[in-house]
Amino acid sequence: MTAGIDALKAALPEGAWTQDPDLMDPHLREWRDKYFGATPIMLTPRSTEEVAMAVKICAAHKMPLMPQGGNTGLVGGNTPQGEVLISLKKMTAIRDLNPTANAMTVEAGATLQSVLDAADAADRKFPLTLSSQGSCTVGGVLSTNAGGNHVLKYGTTKDLVFGVEAVLADGSVFNGLTSLRKDNTGYDLNRLFLGAEGTLGIITAATLKLFPKPRYVQRALIGLDSAATAVSLLEPFRAGGRLAMFEVMPSIGYRAVVDNFDNIRDPFSEKHPWYLLCDWEVETEEEGLSVAELVIGKALDNNTVQDAVIAVNETQAADILSIREHMSAGQKFLGGSIKHDITVPIDLIPEFFARADTAMQAVVPGCRPVGFGHFGDGNIHYNIAQPEGVDRETFLANWDALSQPVFDIVDALGGSISAEHGIGIMKRDDLAERASPVKMKLLRAVKQALDPDKIMNPRVMV
Amino acid sequence: MTAGIDALKAALPEGAWTQDPDLMDPHLREWRDKYFGATPIMLTPRSTEEVAMAVKICAAHKMPLMPQGGNTGLVGGNTPQGEVLISLKKMTAIRDLNPTANAMTVEAGATLQSVLDAADAADRKFPLTLSSQGSCTVGGVLSTNAGGNHVLKYGTTKDLVFGVEAVLADGSVFNGLTSLRKDNTGYDLNRLFLGAEGTLGIITAATLKLFPKPRYVQRALIGLDSAATAVSLLEPFRAGGRLAMFEVMPSIGYRAVVDNFDNIRDPFSEKHPWYLLCDWEVETEEEGLSVAELVIGKALDNNTVQDAVIAVNETQAADILSIREHMSAGQKFLGGSIKHDITVPIDLIPEFFARADTAMQAVVPGCRPVGFGHFGDGNIHYNIAQPEGVDRETFLANWDALSQPVFDIVDALGGSISAEHGIGIMKRDDLAERASPVKMKLLRAVKQALDPDKIMNPRVMV
Repeated sequence: MTAGIDALKAALPEGAWTQDPDLMDPHLREWRDKYFGATPIMLTPRSTEEVAMAVKICAAHKMPLMPQGGNTGLVGGNTPQGEVLISLKKMTAIRDLNPTANAMTVEAGATLQSVLDAADAADRKFPLTLSSQGSCTVGGVLSTNAGGNHVLKYGTTKDLVFGVEAVLADGSVFNGLTSLRKDNTGYDLNRLFLGAEGTLGIITAATLKLFPKPRYVQRALIGLDSAATAVSLLEPFRAGGRLAMFEVMPSIGYRAVVDNFDNIRDPFSEKHPWYLLCDWEVETEEEGLSVAELVIGKALDNNTVQDAVIAVNETQAADILSIREHMSAGQKFLGGSIKHDITVPIDLIPEFFARADTAMQAVVPGCRPVGFGHFGDGNIHYNIAQPEGVDRETFLANWDALSQPVFDIVDALGGSISAEHGIGIMKRDDLAERASPVKMKLLRAVKQALDPDKIMNPRVMV
Repeated sequence: MTAGIDALKAALPEGAWTQDPDLMDPHLREWRDKYFGATPIMLTPRSTEEVAMAVKICAAHKMPLMPQGGNTGLVGGNTPQGEVLISLKKMTAIRDLNPTANAMTVEAGATLQSVLDAADAADRKFPLTLSSQGSCTVGGVLSTNAGGNHVLKYGTTKDLVFGVEAVLADGSVFNGLTSLRKDNTGYDLNRLFLGAEGTLGIITAATLKLFPKPRYVQRALIGLDSAATAVSLLEPFRAGGRLAMFEVMPSIGYRAVVDNFDNIRDPFSEKHPWYLLCDWEVETEEEGLSVAELVIGKALDNNTVQDAVIAVNETQAADILSIREHMSAGQKFLGGSIKHDITVPIDLIPEFFARADTAMQAVVPGCRPVGFGHFGDGNIHYNIAQPEGVDRETFLANWDALSQPVFDIVDALGGSISAEHGIGIMKRDDLAERASPVKMKLLRAVKQALDPDKIMNPRVMV
């Protein structure tokens, strides 16, 4: 390995690598302090050519490597344990923005926020927003196929990409950058790198899909009696194709936010068992009000919903979104939390809750499920808060004991144990145990075909 | 091979195979009589298990096989030359339709029309329509990633699929059937089979994405001066996200239709150099009229367009669509035609025409380009009609001499030599010559990983 490290130092220009512990340290710890790592050297290439040069040397010396974006991942896929660390943070250029083709080509280290800003400046929408958007990078969100609140209308990150540029395991460069909406010349190679967590290649740039900017966003917050009611509202609310957000929160999570953050208040005078937050993307304020009033009015008439706030200005709209955005932070006030990021078929959400809530009580009586999130995609952040008054660490020792029954129910319902956070280190064994043998065989065949020496992020995913 | 054929006959039930020349004949000829084939045996399995059993036997005997759907392909990928022919035509079941999840699971041999009908009956839209929809099958349109008129709003077939069930080269069955909109558990294996032309596995079923049915479709036909003007209208016309069709036709192709089919008439009193056909998907007739009148009115005021017909009833809407649907048939009245299905970045469409029209005249003076199609996707069916009065066959002998300059221009502009028809046999050599070495290496690595003995449709694509 020493010879390989020396070769990297000799080949790369000054400033494109470091072994300074202080400079490397922030890249070796996960932001929630859940994973800590180590690396013999951190590379910070400024160009695709420098990435390719580095990978070529790693390949020659069979040195494992790990790419890193904004270091905001949640499953341990971005914390090295001895691998050469390749940070893309210096590759931030927006190479091209073509409004007619609705396409933006951007380097992997650009933050999501810089992409959102560039799209906005061109009167376009890039429909991916995440709480980490100021830090997370294009390469990271593509490699993890990030989700967010707009999947319902626009799909996951995979659906927002025309093509990628990626450095392969032998150091060659695959150029899939394109703005073509139709290209039937072979297998969908670009797609292979999306959600691959850096195990097949290092994404160095991508051409992203832009969309017309909606002229007005109508937001509403609705109080209702159950998760089943929320699911039943999806059909009337999405009619017309304007629904762009459909987020659901249970009372316990909602109250943990509105009762604990000084700058957040509950817009309702009464308490409700569940809350539904919706956006409709429309052309005018009048259209927004009429869409929201029509469908919510019907639901109120049917006694399906208990109360509703239809935002009439930007401040009100921002305030009610803020409740949803603080759901993760709010759960800290409930003590320790064991977290799951799962999907089930949308119509089975009520059944999931019925089964899972029961299963959780059987393992840890008194624990408090906080299942919230993107119900319009069947995606539930099914977090379990500790029982009141028990010791935090004692509760957290139940992580596996609570997770396995959740995953069993997810599997029984035809769901996914990783909706949007990925596999990484955290769920690698779960994937290997729970996926079908045929699926595992295919995953490994693809990995073997593209990375026969297993140097690309080798501890991760497969 | 004889032992393998005997093994197939012994293993499969009666009625699941035939060697009767009369029964096999329609499956061995392409509908335009461009390709003719041969097979030692045609299998017509009724279930995924029977397909798996057949592939296992082919694998054991290393016998090449070719899957076939509705036999409507355009690039020779569905005409066997000695391969075992596996027709999916008996697997037509709709296994499940879930309106809440907007998902339909259907077997590979079901026709596209049967899918459209089932979606319609459930008050849903499946946004793929093709002139061959009565014959073409789910397995075929997925394996060729068919395009059509609605790509602009809904994407290509790849974007309309949740997951597939596929029999792999060793006879094992990959089950990717799901209605999950989010599933980050490994590489996008489902996507690998889409557009793969049967070279990685045989799709036996798929879960398709359904969409809310638009309540009203506003259609308009517009006369204008140039292709460049058509491209310039894309931006204002798509504002608001309701634009669902943006098809362009040149005068020569338009006239060949309206002047030659008795039941089709030109709704305009004057002739125009180019024509643009648009659909907007809206909720009400009033909304449709107001959207169309607003944007077309502005264009008329700016003298951007010469004249417009805004459809005010279903008959009128059907009549103007009929002109576009007869574009291919209409070209027969112009004599021999050399056809290309290409994409370029949308903003480069005018440049493509400028370069290509000149290049064509240099090869065959007097030839008549008929470039029409899905300009909203950058997709041009750039067909070249023979010069008036020359011999048809003499002109058609120029196929390669005309195609190679077209492909050179497409490559120079960053386009694709196969937008929606695929590679098959027809463009296999072009792909190998024109794709980058890195892309070809990846395509072959994936093929090798999934089909090491090269029995899956081995003459096709890679």
